[in-house]
Amino acid sequence: MSLNTQPYKGARDFYPEELRVRNYIFQTWRNVCYKFGYEEYDSPIIEPIELFSAKSGDELVNQQSYSFADRGGREVTLRPEMTPSVSRLVAGRRQELTLPIRWFSIPNCWRYERPQKGRGREFYQLNIDLFGVDNAQAELEMLLMVKSIMEGFGAKPNQYEIRVNSRKAFQLLLGEWLALTEVEQKTITRLIDRMHKMPPAEFEGLIDASMSPSQREQGLASQLIKVLRGSSFNDLPEMIKSSSAVQDIQSILSNAKALGITNITYDISLARGLDYYTDFVFEVFDTNPDNNRSMFGGGRYDGLVGLFGVDPIPTIGFGMGDIVIHEFLKGHGLLPTIHPEAELIIIPIGDTVNQCQTLASTMRDQGVNVSIDLTNRKTDKQLKSAIKTGVNYVLFVGETEVAEGLYRLKNLAKQQEEPKSIERIVSIVKDHRQES
Amino acid sequence: MSLNTQPYKGARDFYPEELRVRNYIFQTWRNVCYKFGYEEYDSPIIEPIELFSAKSGDELVNQQSYSFADRGGREVTLRPEMTPSVSRLVAGRRQELTLPIRWFSIPNCWRYERPQKGRGREFYQLNIDLFGVDNAQAELEMLLMVKSIMEGFGAKPNQYEIRVNSRKAFQLLLGEWLALTEVEQKTITRLIDRMHKMPPAEFEGLIDASMSPSQREQGLASQLIKVLRGSSFNDLPEMIKSSSAVQDIQSILSNAKALGITNITYDISLARGLDYYTDFVFEVFDTNPDNNRSMFGGGRYDGLVGLFGVDPIPTIGFGMGDIVIHEFLKGHGLLPTIHPEAELIIIPIGDTVNQCQTLASTMRDQGVNVSIDLTNRKTDKQLKSAIKTGVNYVLFVGETEVAEGLYRLKNLAKQQEEPKSIERIVSIVKDHRQES
Repeated sequence: MSLNTQPYKGARDFYPEELRVRNYIFQTWRNVCYKFGYEEYDSPIIEPIELFSAKSGDELVNQQSYSFADRGGREVTLRPEMTPSVSRLVAGRRQELTLPIRWFSIPNCWRYERPQKGRGREFYQLNIDLFGVDNAQAELEMLLMVKSIMEGFGAKPNQYEIRVNSRKAFQLLLGEWLALTEVEQKTITRLIDRMHKMPPAEFEGLIDASMSPSQREQGLASQLIKVLRGSSFNDLPEMIKSSSAVQDIQSILSNAKALGITNITYDISLARGLDYYTDFVFEVFDTNPDNNRSMFGGGRYDGLVGLFGVDPIPTIGFGMGDIVIHEFLKGHGLLPTIHPEAELIIIPIGDTVNQCQTLASTMRDQGVNVSIDLTNRKTDKQLKSAIKTGVNYVLFVGETEVAEGLYRLKNLAKQQEEPKSIERIVSIVKDHRQES
Repeated sequence: MSLNTQPYKGARDFYPEELRVRNYIFQTWRNVCYKFGYEEYDSPIIEPIELFSAKSGDELVNQQSYSFADRGGREVTLRPEMTPSVSRLVAGRRQELTLPIRWFSIPNCWRYERPQKGRGREFYQLNIDLFGVDNAQAELEMLLMVKSIMEGFGAKPNQYEIRVNSRKAFQLLLGEWLALTEVEQKTITRLIDRMHKMPPAEFEGLIDASMSPSQREQGLASQLIKVLRGSSFNDLPEMIKSSSAVQDIQSILSNAKALGITNITYDISLARGLDYYTDFVFEVFDTNPDNNRSMFGGGRYDGLVGLFGVDPIPTIGFGMGDIVIHEFLKGHGLLPTIHPEAELIIIPIGDTVNQCQTLASTMRDQGVNVSIDLTNRKTDKQLKSAIKTGVNYVLFVGETEVAEGLYRLKNLAKQQEEPKSIERIVSIVKDHRQES
């Protein structure tokens, strides 16, 4: 029986043309992180399961984690997200590290979910976190980084929208204004988190069903739905509108607008699925009508580092998956053509391969990316293969060329062929690189 | 109870100063791969276990693999190595892909082993593979890439040594010359693979113990040991010395030397642990007397792609782990100082943080890596933190500076402070980057 050539279900192979896109996405992310003074870190893809049991939420741990016992009986999991790991790293050097800490990472994460468009069982996720700033300038920095990343990808402000909320305002709404118990709040929060993924009527039915008869009699369900569907601060109940939580959000919004972030709105219905957020939360939506959905988000989580038995640190951060941004770029026609790194392929004619090796070494030493077709096939077959790779130049090297020190350089795009010295070839190829 | 801050046993956290080193190693690898016209690919860290059962050898699959059943009951494993996966990818697009294929990858691999110096349970491994070339120019290209990579790391030829052998010559030795059965050959091969990791007397005892009384009487054990300890082609038995396998190796060696590879020798005792090699094999040794051991290697494996039910492809490749090369660089004092990407930290004085945000945006747009200390601490505390990050410049921005448009730029290395305009600051920081 033959082995199967398919990758594990819900996971991706990256052939070179796909890896070039992934590298483009990673590089765009990295550039912005460096611009904002962030440093890259990483941690093992395997973590003890307790790390996620603490705060990531039951679904992630009990239904979606890739957990198993290792050969020594340790209960471990492939990380479903990075936030608990980065908190672990910061806690581990709590004394040595200087605040504020600006860190980013691009981990591969795994979740056992039903694979669907724009969602796999594994993904790469940019994680940006700022530790040690307890004021709203940190929130502003996150929003500025979102803007820079989207600009880095060539996105216009009208192609995406940032929605912000405050977990504190949210808790006021459910706990104080509606006076729901903690358990009821948790259930309703999960429902609201999925609100935009179902038809309005279905959502209303589920909210209604989750209330007790007396709550329904008081009209709590319809009051809640009315607030959630509101679109401005004025639609909020007075006690929430005047709260410091909402005032903080208003000040963040006006500062963001002053710094050129125009596509930002307040959304009281924004819940965010993860349990660890403590205050400000945000999500970024694709405004493409064919793909109008939440792409990524984050928020403030001041409580995680303290779980490791060290002094807590105010923290804010966000994550952004590679699959979702790839879909966004495709949907808006923003994906650039990315050329292979290879620049020139030498085609030996006759028995010149040893001379070709020397020529290739010389060109590589001068910074040109060169390979040799070593297959001994007929010249036209070698040329055909070279064209298919997408390289721009081929170099024909026969015995005459070697004797004269002039080699036939063919520009495949322009279909021009001319004899050139090695020095000229190196400078032609390098000039072409600068232009493209 | 607090959560533990330690990473999973045998695995590494990469704090920024460690990740900078990792990125330096990866970048050096990538540069050489691009120079030789190789393209990067990747595949999921989870693979079906069958992929490795086929050819990777029992130890890797049954004792060292991180295998488990997923939530759908599929038997999977974290990849212990990349060769079976890259063969899967090539087989999966056997028809579309143009030969020769030059591919590389830097996967994270996992093996359940006892953690020890220079060896963890996870590692990153550069994998370089050339598909579709059945002649010895492919072997030569691998050796040239080894040389380029080591040069890229600043290593001198006397700091490492390349040893080569042929699996075919090896099989001639055991199968024809000594007339051992296949089972005996397998046992002896494993022993020889570990020959340099034990004292000579222990090795001789184990070889002796693995032979039958009649084999011992014929003196096979001592004949074998004598050949294995030989150091030149002339020490080989005549039937092996005159074989085409050994002649091929001799021609590879002389071609390699002609292309400037001086630190290369033939070693009949080189076995390589993995089952899938079919002919040429090589290993690279550290010549550091404190760390004299095999660092990495590879060879020809013509049989793997065919296991997927497609036409076989002649293939050669090698792998090189990040931990082992890191140890090598440290051992030879070759690890460069790698500076953080951050270039300038703004320290707001008084109530200027909003202006600082605008200044930072302006500088970032012009390509400078800038962060702001947003903590509202006293200036001297902010300065102390900035110094600890290793950044070269801080910028003091108080209300006077904002009013005048001249900001106090401090070069921390030179301990110089001068008022400068934003345009000047941008060009000073960029000039500094070019110099360092």
